[in-house]
Amino acid sequence: LNTPSSVADLGERAVIDLIRGRLPAAPPWVVIGIGDDAAVVEPARNTLDVFTADALVEGVHFDRRFTPPAAIGHRAMAANLSDLAAMGATPRVALLSVALPGSLAADDLASLVDGLLALAARHRTHLVGGNVTRSPGPLMIDITAVGSVRRRHALARSGARPGDDVWVSGAIGNAAAGLGMLAGGSAFAASEGGEACTRAYLAPEPRVRLGGLLGRNRAASACVDLSDGLADGLVQLAGASGVGMEIDAQAVPVGAPAASWFASLGIDALRAALGGGDDYELLFTVPRRRRSRFEAVRRLTRDVPLTRIGRVTAEPGVWLVHGNDRDPVTGGYEHFR
Amino acid sequence: LNTPSSVADLGERAVIDLIRGRLPAAPPWVVIGIGDDAAVVEPARNTLDVFTADALVEGVHFDRRFTPPAAIGHRAMAANLSDLAAMGATPRVALLSVALPGSLAADDLASLVDGLLALAARHRTHLVGGNVTRSPGPLMIDITAVGSVRRRHALARSGARPGDDVWVSGAIGNAAAGLGMLAGGSAFAASEGGEACTRAYLAPEPRVRLGGLLGRNRAASACVDLSDGLADGLVQLAGASGVGMEIDAQAVPVGAPAASWFASLGIDALRAALGGGDDYELLFTVPRRRRSRFEAVRRLTRDVPLTRIGRVTAEPGVWLVHGNDRDPVTGGYEHFR
Repeated sequence: LNTPSSVADLGERAVIDLIRGRLPAAPPWVVIGIGDDAAVVEPARNTLDVFTADALVEGVHFDRRFTPPAAIGHRAMAANLSDLAAMGATPRVALLSVALPGSLAADDLASLVDGLLALAARHRTHLVGGNVTRSPGPLMIDITAVGSVRRRHALARSGARPGDDVWVSGAIGNAAAGLGMLAGGSAFAASEGGEACTRAYLAPEPRVRLGGLLGRNRAASACVDLSDGLADGLVQLAGASGVGMEIDAQAVPVGAPAASWFASLGIDALRAALGGGDDYELLFTVPRRRRSRFEAVRRLTRDVPLTRIGRVTAEPGVWLVHGNDRDPVTGGYEHFR
Repeated sequence: LNTPSSVADLGERAVIDLIRGRLPAAPPWVVIGIGDDAAVVEPARNTLDVFTADALVEGVHFDRRFTPPAAIGHRAMAANLSDLAAMGATPRVALLSVALPGSLAADDLASLVDGLLALAARHRTHLVGGNVTRSPGPLMIDITAVGSVRRRHALARSGARPGDDVWVSGAIGNAAAGLGMLAGGSAFAASEGGEACTRAYLAPEPRVRLGGLLGRNRAASACVDLSDGLADGLVQLAGASGVGMEIDAQAVPVGAPAASWFASLGIDALRAALGGGDDYELLFTVPRRRRSRFEAVRRLTRDVPLTRIGRVTAEPGVWLVHGNDRDPVTGGYEHFR
């Protein structure tokens, strides 16, 4: 009858207790976890630390009207794990910083935390700390994730060289289509293809294993994740490496359900897929002399589709090649615009 | 005439460039800094990693009407460095995650970044990454700081034992008084004492050196920082250690200008100082057998006032003792209330 139902009813300590109560047992290398001024963690032996932070802000990155709390938590964790994957790093720990509107239901907070912890657990990532505060405005979830990588296995954006092949994992555009369906209340969302798209948006799978294998096997020369879309990833990787790229328009693996949905709306599916964000896939380059190493990685990741979409050129600029025509690819997503 | 004046004019990439452009050269142990999917950092040899995150939210933790941007940046960094200090850790790197209202002036963002970088530089802390996004509501600054500590030198909250002495650094209550003066537009803020208070609020000095010395010299059995106030710190430390405390009301080092200001308003200065937050001081316990080690630390930190305020008891509960009377001290600050 008088059950605390919102985070304002709970207060800060009870919110922290709610989060702590949902954590699995800490691994032995977590020396001090949540509850002290800071967490103390034993580093992995003979590795470098890898750090990334990604924030999801209500009204900018998600809409609570059609994004369930567990999906918000999952996506916040996925964005961080995907960044670690792009470096070839193995995730280890995460810190969760949340700014919570007082009206947020305690059950929704619990679901959000469960969503991020479930994905973290699948990647053996332990939540060791963070911060809880009230927000007078939107719900914000900021996660810092920490991984480890051996020095020679780290994948940077800057290593692509002319002649390298350009590869991408998974299917492109399904997440953008899924977001479009959810935001527009499209009946297509309930179809089999529609469900594949909304799942790609709500529960993306960060390519942690693929990134780690590419790094450990020294199979890729450069790697970036596609959180801000394929076009943005291509431009970022080429820019950081000081090279150009020619991408074969026909080779880009646009997701089949996304392609049908965009086509049904009279939208150019390839353009939409290139520009859409939220595909937590990896874009990477493979030097010719590393092809046999890369084939070994492919044999270990048969469940992840990998597609060669173009090649690296010495001349700067990223081009989308359609037969004898070519169009420039320009950068992506600007959250301020 | 058409100078970009707000972060909305700049866009996300230019905001990142603005931040990168203000960074000093990276130390050699930063293998990959800002600009890739994640940062890669060489750990300090034979140490554990220490992680903390603290967020400042406009309207909850600061008011832009009387908090200059450089002070917002300084305070965000100070909160994190203070947490590392409380663990006895040496700060090394930080990640900055900001959610920026589009209307924020680019100059104000630059000042905010300069404020946090200046404090970071004084503590040899390098900014290696983070996240930039738009906020549809308040300005938010979330910092994750990473330090290092040798296993035997880490200070936890849980190590206090009956018979230990309870010590606190600095003066208590000046920051709370400074905030009160700024918020109320008090003329007292312009006096010498008032300036000491507003400085304590706007530019707190995290006790990084003291925390490191207490840890390295194994002089303290437990330590906590006072970001949420002395009352809260006492209750947290006693609770985590499973002990009680008797605090001598007369010994608590209430800042002289804060005491005058609170008295002029008819407020009990000790109560206000105990309850007020934003004192980035350290509260720690010293076992009797470690007193000579602690005296050695005191000789190395003569510029930091250190005051013995009470002792640890076996019986749980924190008491403020005035002669023959005693009042219970209950926990502090709840940002949701």
